[in-house]
Amino acid sequence: MPHSLRSIAERVDADLHADPDVTISGVAPLDTASPDDISLVVSARYADLVGSSAAAAVLVGRKLVEHLPEGTPYLAVDDPHVALRLVLLALYPEAPPEPGVHPSAVVAESAEIGADVSVGPFSVIEEKAVLGDGVVVSSHVRVGRGARVGGGTLIHAHVTLYPGTELGRDCIIHSGCRLGADGFGYALTGGRHEKIPQVGGCRIGDEVEIGANSTVDRGSIGDTVVGSGSKIDNLAHIGHNVRIGERVIVVAQVGISGSTTVGEGAVLGGQAGIGGHLSIGPGARVGAQAGVTADVPAGQTVSGYPARPHREALRAQAALFRLPQLLRQLREGGKAGDGTS
Amino acid sequence: MPHSLRSIAERVDADLHADPDVTISGVAPLDTASPDDISLVVSARYADLVGSSAAAAVLVGRKLVEHLPEGTPYLAVDDPHVALRLVLLALYPEAPPEPGVHPSAVVAESAEIGADVSVGPFSVIEEKAVLGDGVVVSSHVRVGRGARVGGGTLIHAHVTLYPGTELGRDCIIHSGCRLGADGFGYALTGGRHEKIPQVGGCRIGDEVEIGANSTVDRGSIGDTVVGSGSKIDNLAHIGHNVRIGERVIVVAQVGISGSTTVGEGAVLGGQAGIGGHLSIGPGARVGAQAGVTADVPAGQTVSGYPARPHREALRAQAALFRLPQLLRQLREGGKAGDGTS
Amino acid sequence: MPHSLRSIAERVDADLHADPDVTISGVAPLDTASPDDISLVVSARYADLVGSSAAAAVLVGRKLVEHLPEGTPYLAVDDPHVALRLVLLALYPEAPPEPGVHPSAVVAESAEIGADVSVGPFSVIEEKAVLGDGVVVSSHVRVGRGARVGGGTLIHAHVTLYPGTELGRDCIIHSGCRLGADGFGYALTGGRHEKIPQVGGCRIGDEVEIGANSTVDRGSIGDTVVGSGSKIDNLAHIGHNVRIGERVIVVAQVGISGSTTVGEGAVLGGQAGIGGHLSIGPGARVGAQAGVTADVPAGQTVSGYPARPHREALRAQAALFRLPQLLRQLREGGKAGDGTS
Repeated sequence: MPHSLRSIAERVDADLHADPDVTISGVAPLDTASPDDISLVVSARYADLVGSSAAAAVLVGRKLVEHLPEGTPYLAVDDPHVALRLVLLALYPEAPPEPGVHPSAVVAESAEIGADVSVGPFSVIEEKAVLGDGVVVSSHVRVGRGARVGGGTLIHAHVTLYPGTELGRDCIIHSGCRLGADGFGYALTGGRHEKIPQVGGCRIGDEVEIGANSTVDRGSIGDTVVGSGSKIDNLAHIGHNVRIGERVIVVAQVGISGSTTVGEGAVLGGQAGIGGHLSIGPGARVGAQAGVTADVPAGQTVSGYPARPHREALRAQAALFRLPQLLRQLREGGKAGDGTS
Repeated sequence: MPHSLRSIAERVDADLHADPDVTISGVAPLDTASPDDISLVVSARYADLVGSSAAAAVLVGRKLVEHLPEGTPYLAVDDPHVALRLVLLALYPEAPPEPGVHPSAVVAESAEIGADVSVGPFSVIEEKAVLGDGVVVSSHVRVGRGARVGGGTLIHAHVTLYPGTELGRDCIIHSGCRLGADGFGYALTGGRHEKIPQVGGCRIGDEVEIGANSTVDRGSIGDTVVGSGSKIDNLAHIGHNVRIGERVIVVAQVGISGSTTVGEGAVLGGQAGIGGHLSIGPGARVGAQAGVTADVPAGQTVSGYPARPHREALRAQAALFRLPQLLRQLREGGKAGDGTS
Repeated sequence: MPHSLRSIAERVDADLHADPDVTISGVAPLDTASPDDISLVVSARYADLVGSSAAAAVLVGRKLVEHLPEGTPYLAVDDPHVALRLVLLALYPEAPPEPGVHPSAVVAESAEIGADVSVGPFSVIEEKAVLGDGVVVSSHVRVGRGARVGGGTLIHAHVTLYPGTELGRDCIIHSGCRLGADGFGYALTGGRHEKIPQVGGCRIGDEVEIGANSTVDRGSIGDTVVGSGSKIDNLAHIGHNVRIGERVIVVAQVGISGSTTVGEGAVLGGQAGIGGHLSIGPGARVGAQAGVTADVPAGQTVSGYPARPHREALRAQAALFRLPQLLRQLREGGKAGDGTS
């Protein structure tokens, strides 16, 4: 669906410094863009690629305009990511699949299927499950007994919703997610780990996206909860009875142990691990690979293992790499320095 | 299935300090419990929630009774987790699915199917596979050629058993587990990584539970083994020829590299990584996120990267965070302190 | 398919020090080998197991021959892993499945299916997908609309190829891989994370193997690329717009953040995490669990968090564990030592 640069500029509220009648049909990185594409400059670091790019024009933040080579056709915007999103929505409109249940799908009679629902081949909708209006279920999905899926939600191939799982509206659940599996709970009885039945729920809010092969366990007693607007990347693990607030970002391969709460707007960096029964405050930021072993106050940034306030962790790390020299100097009786003088 | 508190108290061997004729039908956390629920106090930290809870009574360890607000109805027990398990089994009895093979399932003629087996929609049981009595196979499962599943084992949706995989009795395998995939083995030949055929087995003992999306590779030559009674959480990776003993706990996202052995009763914390060809002794404990690069003796607790005895690791970490101040003091020629005086 | 030791020795170019007419039919580890098996000695550490092994003979590197007990029948080779591979190929020849599309599979009319293709039960080949000659698709696979799979590639059960994904020839994709799922990209608009449409591609080269439950996201704009001959282990995460060169090794549970490039022949150790927009040079080596936060030059080995040149990281770690003693000595006014004298 091609658009003129004029139409694009209006759509993203840009100052247009390019021929408004040029038509584009795609978005591409600077190095692979063709003259039919618009491209993007998000950092001064990439500005020197602009000169050799064939793109019809570039989207650029107003602050970076001065870094562009002279004569570059551009659209200056406040936030290039926000603008990129709007351009992509215009150029790559997505057609939802035709509503209808594939003849191979197995849908229980007692399941409630809303209007305009699409169910792909080999999917199973069990007894008393509920799919809201406009839900799209791809192929090979299992929606367990009594699970509920809110309107407009998209479930990709090979997802498992264990019985009773609740998903809000307008969610996107990627392939291989397992929602509502048993939590990891045992009672040690005479040296044997006896399984504690897991009878709690798994409740996901509205507009939540969960990446491929991530897992959110059901509660042991009480529920595991993911708040509305939260986004979870691939291969993350959310333990039983975790309570994630609204608009939380959970990057790939993060693990959150049982009964921990994560406050609204917090950001958990990739591969971070959060211990059990902890509280991560609203707006807190946990660095990639951090190992969190204690509560994190609201708004605080922590990193490292065990996680400490980020500034303190950085100072300790910097000192660590000066330490071998310090030890050498002390051993030689010389004056200790910080290794930088 | 409601029970009186009298019946519950008998079942868990509790001292009952509540009206024995009160009837409960569920278990819930303190903050969401209704008067039909029993709840649980596992730590003095939560005792102040008891006063505002609507629960009919609480299960509590005998040592915590003194922390309860006066007048709290309670059942005092030796171990509240053990008691919780028994209460849940009583209140939430699980009905196994009706035996029978769903008409959509594909079961090879040469497969051996025991008594009272249930096979869900779209599952595939390949040639010469064996399912013992009472096995439950959910939907979309692949049981590969010649794989063997012991009696009473439950396989959740979307599990893959590669050909020849052996599962013991009374196991629980959660959705998305991949058992018996090829190990990661290549021979470098002229700069190319040439695949070494993986021909060993993948043998899982009895009463093993494996969490969602975990992977246990087959051996290259010889077998990968998980001992009876071991419990593996979500998204764990068990490499080829690893030998895990009995009653081992493997927490979520742990990775164990090829040919490592883990002794009976060991506990591997979340996201820990264990190098290849190592020996983790019986009863050893590996801290969350630890990186184990050397053998760990029986009974030892290690943590950090590279993993060291836990006490030593703690001392080093504590010292690290005092280091910036030490460097500053040395630079200024002042007396060095430990940052705490 | 049994072979004489003479035939085996010729095949792997070995010096044969054993009865050439002895026949073997399998390969097994020293401790479980029977007299019909050949075994393997890859380290002097295992040489003392040789005496008690029932193996007919052992494959051994020429440098380790002197460690064998006297009288051990052996085949001396330059590289025992290379030899092992050749022996396994001879003793365990793999028969490809019969070509043909299982009657339960759903194959779109517009899909192009090459010669001698095998498609297993409950697999879905969507519109305009292309399967090259000799492709094997196991059960429960989804090949999305317009996806392309090169000749000779093997796709195990439960794999998802999102629409448009491109796979080269002679690849092996293990169960549960998700190729081409959306990258993790949002624009923060008024406190809400608004999804940026992900419209780029996911292109995998030739002879790539990807382990169970790994994920390779599609690009946001532009493509995510995995170069030919690269090998990826289980549960790895490759973010959007990552570009992995040829013959790269990615060990289990590694995570690579968006837009990072990994040069030819690099090796990423297990559980390593690589930040976004970084460059890992050709031939670089990243240690297990390392956290890479800056570019890594070609050929360099880094480890630790934040990752530093390996030697420097080792020195800092060694110093760290001497630090508690140093602090104690300084506090006591004594002479500082390095804890080893």
